[in-house]
Amino acid sequence: MALIVQKYGGTSVGDPDRIKNVARKVVDRKRKGDSVVVVASAMSGETNKLVVLVNKIAEIHDTREYDQVVSTGEQVTIGLLTLAIQALGEKSRSFLGLQVPIVTDSAHAKARILRVGEENLRKALAEGVIPVVAGFQGVDEKGNVTTLGRGGSDTTAVAVAAALKADLCEIYTDVDGVYTTDPNVCETARRLDRVSYDEMLELASMGAKVLQTRSVELAKRFRVPVLTLSSFTEGGGTLMKEEEGMESLVVSGVAADRNEAKVTVSHVPDRQGIAARLFQAVADANIVVDMIVQNVSESGYTDITFTVTKADLARAQKTVEGIIGELGAGKVRTDVNVAKVSIIGSGMHSQPGVAAQMFSSLAKEGINILMISTSEIKVSCLIEEKYAELAVRALHATFLENG
Amino acid sequence: MALIVQKYGGTSVGDPDRIKNVARKVVDRKRKGDSVVVVASAMSGETNKLVVLVNKIAEIHDTREYDQVVSTGEQVTIGLLTLAIQALGEKSRSFLGLQVPIVTDSAHAKARILRVGEENLRKALAEGVIPVVAGFQGVDEKGNVTTLGRGGSDTTAVAVAAALKADLCEIYTDVDGVYTTDPNVCETARRLDRVSYDEMLELASMGAKVLQTRSVELAKRFRVPVLTLSSFTEGGGTLMKEEEGMESLVVSGVAADRNEAKVTVSHVPDRQGIAARLFQAVADANIVVDMIVQNVSESGYTDITFTVTKADLARAQKTVEGIIGELGAGKVRTDVNVAKVSIIGSGMHSQPGVAAQMFSSLAKEGINILMISTSEIKVSCLIEEKYAELAVRALHATFLENG
Repeated sequence: MALIVQKYGGTSVGDPDRIKNVARKVVDRKRKGDSVVVVASAMSGETNKLVVLVNKIAEIHDTREYDQVVSTGEQVTIGLLTLAIQALGEKSRSFLGLQVPIVTDSAHAKARILRVGEENLRKALAEGVIPVVAGFQGVDEKGNVTTLGRGGSDTTAVAVAAALKADLCEIYTDVDGVYTTDPNVCETARRLDRVSYDEMLELASMGAKVLQTRSVELAKRFRVPVLTLSSFTEGGGTLMKEEEGMESLVVSGVAADRNEAKVTVSHVPDRQGIAARLFQAVADANIVVDMIVQNVSESGYTDITFTVTKADLARAQKTVEGIIGELGAGKVRTDVNVAKVSIIGSGMHSQPGVAAQMFSSLAKEGINILMISTSEIKVSCLIEEKYAELAVRALHATFLENG
Repeated sequence: MALIVQKYGGTSVGDPDRIKNVARKVVDRKRKGDSVVVVASAMSGETNKLVVLVNKIAEIHDTREYDQVVSTGEQVTIGLLTLAIQALGEKSRSFLGLQVPIVTDSAHAKARILRVGEENLRKALAEGVIPVVAGFQGVDEKGNVTTLGRGGSDTTAVAVAAALKADLCEIYTDVDGVYTTDPNVCETARRLDRVSYDEMLELASMGAKVLQTRSVELAKRFRVPVLTLSSFTEGGGTLMKEEEGMESLVVSGVAADRNEAKVTVSHVPDRQGIAARLFQAVADANIVVDMIVQNVSESGYTDITFTVTKADLARAQKTVEGIIGELGAGKVRTDVNVAKVSIIGSGMHSQPGVAAQMFSSLAKEGINILMISTSEIKVSCLIEEKYAELAVRALHATFLENG
């Protein structure tokens, strides 16, 4: 008998019939002899409706009150799902974040989980009750309702699984697992049976929207095995667990991120502290920088190029233009027509020549590389956006279609 | 400086613009120097939507989960209203039932308030914060979310006013007070400036839907002055407070209730215990009986007539038909085409002849009286339904239009 935490996302509980369908899956699992704890999101679209209401009242708002409003979507779902489970003859009880409790800090709208009280859930399980926990919401030390930020229900599920030392955390969504690359771009993309936490972190941060990054970090920290699978089809799924003892591929995924834009500051005096001042100003504007490249200095001047999200580009440009006078730098150029393609794989750092193979694969297709950044398990290249699909298919063929 | 509890109903907070309008009223009052605590209902229609969702999942349902779902309507409103108050520059904070706390028993869907914790609200008031409290919801001793039954927000407001010993509880609704009778029936109906708790209790139970009966009982018990008024027009209102020292009218209101139906059991043996067995059977079927008349016995047999709500009529008839054999009674007849008209007034019991005046007023219009029931402050007559409006106008003219 295993202890399983199952998380169902918004589309899985999108209407009363789908909620009944989820209840059947939960009850089936319980009747096979496992103990089940369910974590549920708001019905799809409901949280957005609530956000729209808040914005109609006040564009700039107190996030405590925002949380009070937007946390209600999950509250509705857990009550309904509990009723649907009871209608099938099993005992069930719903738990708000504050009833578990899932204690968070007070950073409303983006709270972080401090601890999950396991006592109430354990007691329910001991009574044969299926607990249904509200995703996304928590409570701070003062009793205020908090939320974890969009997609926070994944994090709730992993945190509950960690607290209960569950054997498995199952994340039901509308896709049946993690793929080697986007199947819409590359027909030969295939589902990965297994993926390591680090690989998943890179894939998640690259826009593979299967799991929220924070939930992967949490799963890694507490070594929670996470299976992502579809609530609409049977079987399949990708199991995320520690890499030790796993038969790792050198490269396990290829991803493209179109959400980046490039900022180049030219003719920057090559003196100590100049780059620090530049990026401090950008950080002060609350802008996250991804890739950074600084060219080798010639004649005492250099160029600095970095990438930000497309949404932050205008603010980044304004910030940098406000400081170039002080820096004694030249001018600022921006480019939105870029994409970042990456190869990801935990086996990579022990395999020499992977980066070189990537550059050569792109060169063969006539794709110019604008920037490069590397990590232990990832190599990313910034290229012209129009080549993104071509690059993904070429890299997928090179690394994932002959073995 | 007075301490005021203001309650706004569903239509008053029905959309973002109306919520902003309520916020202006709250802020105006605060800026005139009063301390204000707000109690808010769900936006009109929202609670019904949630009830429909629950019924789509399970017609017969666990009321704990029902409460978990239907209490979210108020949670949304208090967050939005707090944001609207903040947008006008005042400090405000929303309070769920469990954050006040409003502690109730565990009778889900119809919980009764045990106590209202005043400490958190007092602290907020001391900081110049306008507390916005969720109506309708509470929390039981175990931390389960409870609801007070439909219209329970009035009860929340009066309970909060009682706990804080507020100077006044203002109930904003879509009518501007309590009328001598239904203005749709009788053009000369006029708003009462004052009404006693007992008169209001009778008026509320007669279907004058200004205040929930339970909230009136609570106001009476804790002597909370309650002003009911419109959130859409300025001025007006009816003040409900203790009758002592008030200039009481003999009759302060005329009401008609079309929701009754009549059951007559004929040829009932006139022996001890027969009536008791009949009404015990009805009570066991969970049917509330309003008026009861037993004719004087002739030749050892009598007729018993009573009224129930139209919704309970079929079940009442079935119940009685199931027991008449055992009772040795004759047959059961029912009539749905009846209405109960009543005159209400705390001055009545010290004024002889009021009932006689009522009967004569009805007789003058050719209206036959089917049943009579009286209390300290009320006389009710059951008549044919088609005469209901005529009876109301006649009684209003007799008692309320010459003085």
